[in-house]
Amino acid sequence: MDTGRAVREAARSGAWDRPTAGLAAGYVQTNVVILPARYAFDFLRFCLRNPKPCPVVDVTAAGDPHPDPAVARDADLRTDVPRYRVYRHGEFVEERTDIRDLWREDFVGVLLGCSFTFEQALLAAGVPVRHVECGCNVPMYVTNRETRPAGPFHGPLVVSMRPIPGEQVPRAVEVTSRFPQAHGAPVYIGDPRGLGIDDLGRPDFGDPVPIRPGEVPVFWACGVTTQIAVMNARLPIVITHAPGHMFVTDLIIDDGP
Amino acid sequence: MDTGRAVREAARSGAWDRPTAGLAAGYVQTNVVILPARYAFDFLRFCLRNPKPCPVVDVTAAGDPHPDPAVARDADLRTDVPRYRVYRHGEFVEERTDIRDLWREDFVGVLLGCSFTFEQALLAAGVPVRHVECGCNVPMYVTNRETRPAGPFHGPLVVSMRPIPGEQVPRAVEVTSRFPQAHGAPVYIGDPRGLGIDDLGRPDFGDPVPIRPGEVPVFWACGVTTQIAVMNARLPIVITHAPGHMFVTDLIIDDGP
Repeated sequence: MDTGRAVREAARSGAWDRPTAGLAAGYVQTNVVILPARYAFDFLRFCLRNPKPCPVVDVTAAGDPHPDPAVARDADLRTDVPRYRVYRHGEFVEERTDIRDLWREDFVGVLLGCSFTFEQALLAAGVPVRHVECGCNVPMYVTNRETRPAGPFHGPLVVSMRPIPGEQVPRAVEVTSRFPQAHGAPVYIGDPRGLGIDDLGRPDFGDPVPIRPGEVPVFWACGVTTQIAVMNARLPIVITHAPGHMFVTDLIIDDGP
Repeated sequence: MDTGRAVREAARSGAWDRPTAGLAAGYVQTNVVILPARYAFDFLRFCLRNPKPCPVVDVTAAGDPHPDPAVARDADLRTDVPRYRVYRHGEFVEERTDIRDLWREDFVGVLLGCSFTFEQALLAAGVPVRHVECGCNVPMYVTNRETRPAGPFHGPLVVSMRPIPGEQVPRAVEVTSRFPQAHGAPVYIGDPRGLGIDDLGRPDFGDPVPIRPGEVPVFWACGVTTQIAVMNARLPIVITHAPGHMFVTDLIIDDGP
């Protein structure tokens, strides 16, 4: 599966229901949040007020499951995500590979950039990405920073951490700042206590990774921020992608901002 | 009036009802679009799909005339713009200095970045801004490029043009790319025919400016794009700032993206 379209078609047919990391190299992958239109306006306000953790790539019209063709031609948000999660009143209910029978005429789909995009750019620039080396999940931490709330959406800023050799930190900032739609430049570099993180060895989500001599922890805004804010809103129903099972667009990473 | 707050207070009291260019140097000024909540979601979709002409700085909750305090503390969108324009069904109706008696419980205010921000940064970087030198309005042109539509909002991309000496064009790109919330990097550089513009001497809006030997026309996405898209939507009511009479925030230009 070399293209976004190929991954979407495999998800749609049921041929692929597993994580999308490493698929369709070079194509932008996104988080997906599907929610009733009456909450969508406040959710967009939340995203616009917190663009680093919540970079909006596209928003569908109410009831329309098709993203902008410029983002993903012939795509259908009811079928094209390999695996979905359904939440009711903030609680996880079930996992699915298809949500056609759950779709409603008032549903809105929001596509949000994800860190896969900038990690590919980091690797292409020769900057190491530790959790990829280790074959584990990126470590993520809840910080002492609050997001800017909007309507019922609120919660802490969550960050992901990648240890970077001191001499490559400027390059890591340069490279990722080119991708504002994939969390952009880091939000913090160095002493984790400044973010209220006591122990890097015990991440709130994901797996711990080793930090080697000469490396500094570099923190990027993380899409889990959005998930927590959505859960905190306790909406009657929200559907998201399952972790790691992303929507793959037709957008090319190298197109930049 | 050295600060955004001071300009807002002067507009509120009626002491200032004139253009805001040159006021509160260093503070971000914004376009204002106030519209009923039922259209606000599609309008945000339009802005998100066209971030270069329509960079969103803040969005108020329905019925709430107060922007995010992080953007403008103690501000009130019913009084703090020096001069408003009211449109009904896409037609201009009246100009006002106060819209308290027009405000409705379903109104949403959207603040959009404007080019004053990056022009100050260009001047600070030693890049000339011709229409400022000439003391006239920037020339603006309707292009042959369509925006990505959303709901009833659609129309052409409108650009502003500044002639820049060839050796300073890269610097102009670098400087303005730092301000994605103020139209960001140029959208086009060079031969205006590539944008469907036949005669730079006859702008669609604003005033023509001279282009000197060794200079190239540099085109940035322009906020008039938003105005045309809003007029095309022919909403029952829309209120905007009057041209040049902007809302001045507490945001500092040098804070960058």
